Amino acid sequence: MQQYRVAMIPGDGIGTEVLPAARAVLDRVAAHHGFALVYDDLDWSCERYRATGAMMPEDGLDRIRHHDAILLGAVGYPGVPDHVSLWGLLIPIRRAFRQYVNLRPITVLEGVPSPVSRARPGEVDFVVVRENSEGEYSEIGGRINRGFPEETAVQETVFTRVGVERILDYAFDLAARRGGRLTSATKSNGIVHTMPFWDQLVAERAADHPGVTWDQEHIDALAAKIVLDPARFDVIVGSNLFGDILSDLAAAVAGSIGIAPSANLDPTGAHPSMFEPVHGSAPDIAGQGVANPLGAIWSAAMMLDHLGRPEAGAQVMAAVRELLATSGVRTRDLGGDAGTGDFTDELLKLLP
Amino acid sequence: MQQYRVAMIPGDGIGTEVLPAARAVLDRVAAHHGFALVYDDLDWSCERYRATGAMMPEDGLDRIRHHDAILLGAVGYPGVPDHVSLWGLLIPIRRAFRQYVNLRPITVLEGVPSPVSRARPGEVDFVVVRENSEGEYSEIGGRINRGFPEETAVQETVFTRVGVERILDYAFDLAARRGGRLTSATKSNGIVHTMPFWDQLVAERAADHPGVTWDQEHIDALAAKIVLDPARFDVIVGSNLFGDILSDLAAAVAGSIGIAPSANLDPTGAHPSMFEPVHGSAPDIAGQGVANPLGAIWSAAMMLDHLGRPEAGAQVMAAVRELLATSGVRTRDLGGDAGTGDFTDELLKLLP
Ligand SMILES: CC(C)[C@H](C(=O)O)[C@@H](O)C(=O)O
Ligand SMILES: CC(C)[C@H](C(=O)O)[C@@H](O)C(=O)O
Repeated sequence: MQQYRVAMIPGDGIGTEVLPAARAVLDRVAAHHGFALVYDDLDWSCERYRATGAMMPEDGLDRIRHHDAILLGAVGYPGVPDHVSLWGLLIPIRRAFRQYVNLRPITVLEGVPSPVSRARPGEVDFVVVRENSEGEYSEIGGRINRGFPEETAVQETVFTRVGVERILDYAFDLAARRGGRLTSATKSNGIVHTMPFWDQLVAERAADHPGVTWDQEHIDALAAKIVLDPARFDVIVGSNLFGDILSDLAAAVAGSIGIAPSANLDPTGAHPSMFEPVHGSAPDIAGQGVANPLGAIWSAAMMLDHLGRPEAGAQVMAAVRELLATSGVRTRDLGGDAGTGDFTDELLKLLP
Repeated sequence: MQQYRVAMIPGDGIGTEVLPAARAVLDRVAAHHGFALVYDDLDWSCERYRATGAMMPEDGLDRIRHHDAILLGAVGYPGVPDHVSLWGLLIPIRRAFRQYVNLRPITVLEGVPSPVSRARPGEVDFVVVRENSEGEYSEIGGRINRGFPEETAVQETVFTRVGVERILDYAFDLAARRGGRLTSATKSNGIVHTMPFWDQLVAERAADHPGVTWDQEHIDALAAKIVLDPARFDVIVGSNLFGDILSDLAAAVAGSIGIAPSANLDPTGAHPSMFEPVHGSAPDIAGQGVANPLGAIWSAAMMLDHLGRPEAGAQVMAAVRELLATSGVRTRDLGGDAGTGDFTDELLKLLP
C-alpha cells in the first residue's frame, strides 16, 4: 500500500481544532482509495515558543524536508509577536522549501450565501496565484534615528526576474488548463520601479503562452472589480502582497474566510509543499469547538490532488458540496450552530 | 463679494466632460450664497504633452501656488506612459503642495444600489484617510542586470515619523469630530520594517487622543471586512498604497467608482488643496457624453467645504441626495441612460 508522509502542524488557536477534522476526512478517503497517510505530529507553535523559546526545533526544517507534504493549521497567538511566530515558522517553511506559488481557489459554493449579490454559485470560480517567496515581504530594511523627530523606516521590495518569471509561468499554465484567461495585478502607475518590471515580464511571458488571453489591472481597480463583477475572473496573478490582499478579499466575496483553502507549492517537487486554511488562529473563538473546519478540509483536498490522488480530493469536495447544498449543517461563521465536530461528523457520513 | 481663485485642470478623457458639470453646479451655488469662483483654465494634460513634450509648463506649480484650490478632472491617456502623465502632473501637485492627506468619504446614498447586500443607505458612512506624500510611492529604487537572468528590481518604501504622525493626527482628529472610532490599516505581520513602525506611531498618537477608540487590522483582513461588514467603520487610516486600495474597494461597495470624490489636502493651509473624482480618464467611454459627473460634483462640494463655504457644499449634496432618492435619473454606470449633461441639468433644477 502506498504511503505518504505528512508533517502535521496544527499550530495555534483554532489550528488545533480544524486539523483533526481534516485528518479524519483524509483517513476516511485514503482507506477507501487504498493508500495510507502517515503523520508526523509536530507541536511547533506559540505554545512551544513560550515553553522553549523557539517556534520549532533548530533542525525543524531538516526533519520535514523529505516528507511528501505539510498540513498546517494556523500560526500566531496574542502576546507572541508576529516576527517570532510567523517569521519563526510559517515564512521559513514557505521560503526554505521554495514554495514560490501560493494558490487560492475562490469558488462560490451552493448553500454558502455571499455578501456580494453578483457572486452566484456556478458563476464565480477563479484562482488567485500569489507569488510567495519575495517581493514586498523582505527582511531588507530598518530604522534610523529611533525615537527622534527625524526617525525614518525603510523597507525594500525586491523582485527578481527568476522569481517573477516562474510565478507568471505557473499562472499562465494554470490559465491554459482552466478557462484560458489571466489577469495580472499591478500598480505600475504608483510603484514606479518594481511594478513596471512585473508588467514587462507579464508581456514577455505572454508571448510564450499564446493560448491565454491576458490583461492587467491596477490593484485598486482590481479590488473594486472583484466586488462589482467577480464572475469575470479565471486566474489572477499577483505579487506577494497583492496576492495576499486579493485572496482574502475574494474569500470574503465567496462567503467566509473560514472556508478558504490555500496551497504553498514548490511546483518542481524538490521540496514538500504546504497546505493551510486561509483563516488565522482566531484566538477570540479558540477552544470553543465552533471553528469552521472547511478551510482545513478543503486544503487537505488540495493536498490529495498534489500527492497525485485527485480522485480522493474530488471525493472530499463532492461530499462538501453535497453537505452544503442539501443540508442546513453550518458552523457559526455561516450563520449556523454546528460545532467543528458536528460538521465533520455530518461530512464523514457522506463519505464511503 | 468674496472671490476664490480656482485652478481648473480638466486633464484627459472624461475629465474634460465632468469638470464643466461641476463648474455649472459651483457657479449656481456661489451666486446663491454671494461669493464668486474665479477660474484659471489650464490645459495640462496628455494632449498638451503630445503637443509640447510636457504635461504642464515648467513654472506650472508656481502659477497656481497662490490659488485657493485646484479642481482636477482625470489624468492619463493610452499611449502616454504613467510615469509621464501621473508623475508629470498629479503626483508633483500632491507633493509640491504638501497635500499629505487624501480624504475619501464613503457613503451609500439612497437610490444607488450597492453590490454588497449589507451596505445600506444610512448605515454605511465612513472616511478613508490616506497618507498622500510618502510610503510605497517613492522614486527610490531601480534595476540592475537589465535583460539578464539575474535582473533585479528594487523599490524602497520610506516612512518618516513626521509623515506618519501628521496623517495619524489628522485621522484621530477627524474621528473625534465624527463617530469617535479609528481603524488603522497595517500589515506588520508581513512587512516587517515599515508597518511595525506605523503601528507603534498609531499607539503613540492614540495616547494624545483619548476620546477616540481605535483598533488595527491587517490589510488583507480589512479588505475582507469592508465587504462583509461595511457599516462597522467610521474612519480608516492607511498608508499611501493601502489607502489607495481600500478607498477604491470601498467606493465599489458604495455602488460606483463614478460617484466617489476625493480631496488632497494640505491641512496647514500653506498651499492650495486639490479636489478630484476617484475615477480615471476612462478612455473607453470618453467623448460620448455618458460619464457620471457625480464624482466631480461631490469633489467640488468638498472644495466648497474646504474654502470655508460648508453651507454651499451642503446645498450641493442635498440636491444630489434628492435627485438620486426621488428620481430615476441615472448615468450609465448606475444602470440608467442619462448623459453627463442630462444628469447635470436635472441637478441644477434642484438648486436655487
Ligand atoms: C493614478 C494613480 C497614481 C493614483 C494613485 O494611486 O494615487 C490613483 O489611483 C488615485 O488613487 O488617485
Ligand atoms: C500571517 C501572514 C504573514 C500571512 C501572509 O500575509 O502571508 C497570511 O496573511 C497569509 O496570507 O498566509
